[in-house]
Amino acid sequence: MPDMRAIGFTHNQPIENNQSFFEFFEPRPEATGHDLLVKVIATAVNPVDTGVRRGTTERLDRPKVIGWDAYGIVTAVGEAVTLFQTGDRVFYAGAFKRPGTDSEYHLVDERIVGPAPTKLTPAEIAATPLTSLTTWEALFEQLPINFDAPKENTGHTVLIINGAGGVGSMATQLAHLAGLTVIATASRPETIAWTQSHGADYVVNHREDLVAQVHDLGFKTVDYILELSNLNQHWSEIVDLIKPSGHIVSITGSETPLDLRALKPKRATFAWEWMYTKSYYETPDMLSQHAILTRVQQLLDAGKLKSTLNKTMTPINAANLRAAHALVESNRMIGKVVITNA
Amino acid sequence: MPDMRAIGFTHNQPIENNQSFFEFFEPRPEATGHDLLVKVIATAVNPVDTGVRRGTTERLDRPKVIGWDAYGIVTAVGEAVTLFQTGDRVFYAGAFKRPGTDSEYHLVDERIVGPAPTKLTPAEIAATPLTSLTTWEALFEQLPINFDAPKENTGHTVLIINGAGGVGSMATQLAHLAGLTVIATASRPETIAWTQSHGADYVVNHREDLVAQVHDLGFKTVDYILELSNLNQHWSEIVDLIKPSGHIVSITGSETPLDLRALKPKRATFAWEWMYTKSYYETPDMLSQHAILTRVQQLLDAGKLKSTLNKTMTPINAANLRAAHALVESNRMIGKVVITNA
Repeated sequence: MPDMRAIGFTHNQPIENNQSFFEFFEPRPEATGHDLLVKVIATAVNPVDTGVRRGTTERLDRPKVIGWDAYGIVTAVGEAVTLFQTGDRVFYAGAFKRPGTDSEYHLVDERIVGPAPTKLTPAEIAATPLTSLTTWEALFEQLPINFDAPKENTGHTVLIINGAGGVGSMATQLAHLAGLTVIATASRPETIAWTQSHGADYVVNHREDLVAQVHDLGFKTVDYILELSNLNQHWSEIVDLIKPSGHIVSITGSETPLDLRALKPKRATFAWEWMYTKSYYETPDMLSQHAILTRVQQLLDAGKLKSTLNKTMTPINAANLRAAHALVESNRMIGKVVITNA
Repeated sequence: MPDMRAIGFTHNQPIENNQSFFEFFEPRPEATGHDLLVKVIATAVNPVDTGVRRGTTERLDRPKVIGWDAYGIVTAVGEAVTLFQTGDRVFYAGAFKRPGTDSEYHLVDERIVGPAPTKLTPAEIAATPLTSLTTWEALFEQLPINFDAPKENTGHTVLIINGAGGVGSMATQLAHLAGLTVIATASRPETIAWTQSHGADYVVNHREDLVAQVHDLGFKTVDYILELSNLNQHWSEIVDLIKPSGHIVSITGSETPLDLRALKPKRATFAWEWMYTKSYYETPDMLSQHAILTRVQQLLDAGKLKSTLNKTMTPINAANLRAAHALVESNRMIGKVVITNA
C-alpha cells in the first residue's frame, strides 16, 4: 500500500517552533463500510484545531493529524457506501475521534459528507463545512427556528455574540436568510464592516455594555442568543437580554461553572452546540449532516449564501499550517483561513 | 367596602408556632381590567409556599398572603374580562407577584384561569392547577414533546426524578398519556405504589444509583429528563443518562453553580420551568395558561387524568394551613394536600 503525506504534531509547542507541526509519511488508509477515501484538495483551520493542539500537553507516541474542513475528490469507497462514488467532489467537516483532514488522503463516513458546490473555488468551499454545520445545528436544531419559515421568523431577533468569526459570519448570513432580525457583535472597523456585509441588521460592540447597546436599539430583550465568544464573560449580559421563555445556544464551553439559576425566573432554555456530537456518538440522525451540507451546497451555488473565506495559503504543508494556526490563535481572524493545493 | 378574612405571615417562624400563620381582616379587593374576583372554596399547598414563607427572614410591615392553587366561584369581573362571567366555577394557580389564594376572596387575571372541571370535588380540583400547568409547560413547551402525537412519542423515554410528589404524579400521568415510556423515581413502598398507579412504566430508586438502575432496565440513555427533586444532587446522573441531543428540564433550582459544560459533548439542552414566568413578565403568551387549564379540565372530566389529591383538611383556617405546610415541609408528601371550605 502506498504511503501518503500527512502533517501532525506530538505535543503542544509554540506555533512559531518549526516542529509544532511537521510533515511525515504514513500508510494511505483503505475505505471500508460507509467510508469514503478522499484526496484532500483544500482544508481550513478552525479554533477547535488550535484548542486541540494546545491541549496536547503530554507527548504522543505517534503524530496526531487534526483538521476539520475539507474539499476533495472521492478516490475509493467502502462496500456499504450508497451516497457517493469515485470521482465525486465532496465537502465535509469530519469526525472528532478520527484523524483529521491535514493529510493527502482522508477517510470520512459518507453520512456526514455533502456534494461540493460547483460554482466556488476549492478554497471557498473548504471554508464552509464546519461553520455551516455548526450554525445550522445551532440555529435550526438547537434553537426552535425553522429555516424554511422566514415569514414566521420575521420580527424575531437573534443576538450573535462574535459576528465576524468563522461561525459568526456564517450564522449572520443563515439567520438573515431565515428572516430573523440579526444583531451581531463586532469591535473593530474591519469586523463591523465584515459583519454588516454578511447580513447583520445591527452591530453592537462586545467590548462595551451589550445590554445598554441592545436597549438603545429599541430591543428590551431578544428571542435568541447565539454565543460564539466567551460564555463566562458574557453570562450576565445574556441573562439580562434573553426574552422570558427565550433560547440560548453556545459553542464555546465555559471556564467555570455557570450560575444557571439566574435564568430560572425567565424559564430560559440553554443548549450547547457541538458539531461532532452526531458522529462521536454515531447517533441515528448522523445522516442529517449529509442533508445539511446538501442544503448548504444548494444555497452556495444559488448565490444565496457566500463563502466566508478571507485568507488563502498555498500549498498544504507544515509551514502554511503553522501560519494558519498562528492566525487563528491571534483571536483576530475575520472569517476563515484556508490552505489549498489547488 | 366589606372586609374579608385572609391568612398570612409577617416573617418566618417554625411552622409549629401558632403565629407562623395567622388570620386577619383586610378590605375585599375590587376587580378591574382583566381581573376576576373569586370566592375561594379550596386551596392547596405546594413546595413553593413553604419556600416563600421560610425565605421571609425580615419582618414585613403587612402580613403576606401566599397560596397558589384555587377552586372558586367568580363573584365580580373587571371591565376588560371576556372569558368568564359572575357565577362561573374556575380553577387556577395565580401569579407570583400578587397576593395568593389563602384568603376569602382573590383577584386573578382571567388569562391564567381555566373553567373548573365539573365531575370532581372542590378539593380534587384545587389539587391540580399549579402542578398541571408546571407539567404541561415543562413537557410540552420546554421539552420538544407534542402531547397530541402519542404515536410519534412512542418509544421515547422520559426519566421523572421524584415521581410521587405533586408535580411528579401529574407529570407521570401526562407523560404516559402522551405516549412516552415513563421511568419515575420513588423510594418508599407507598411512593412506588402511588407512582405506578399514576402510569409509570418503570420505577427506580433515587436513593440508589440511578445510572445503574436505568441501564439494568435496558436503557443506555433516555430522551428526556424531568428533574423535580434536587438538581445538584442528581446532576452527574443526569449528565450520564441523557441521550446525545437529549433534553433536560428542571423546576428545582440549584444550590450551587452547575458544571453545565459536562453536557457539551452530548450537545444536550437544559431548560428551566417556572410556572409563574408568563404572568410575572406578562408575556404575550400569558393566555396559553388559560388554554392549558382548559385542556386539563377536559382531561379531568373525561377521566383520562385524575386528581393527585391525597390529603384534605377542612375548613380553610390558620390552623389547617399550618398543618398543611408542616406536611409539605416534611418532604414526604405524596401527591397533594388541599384545604377546603366545601
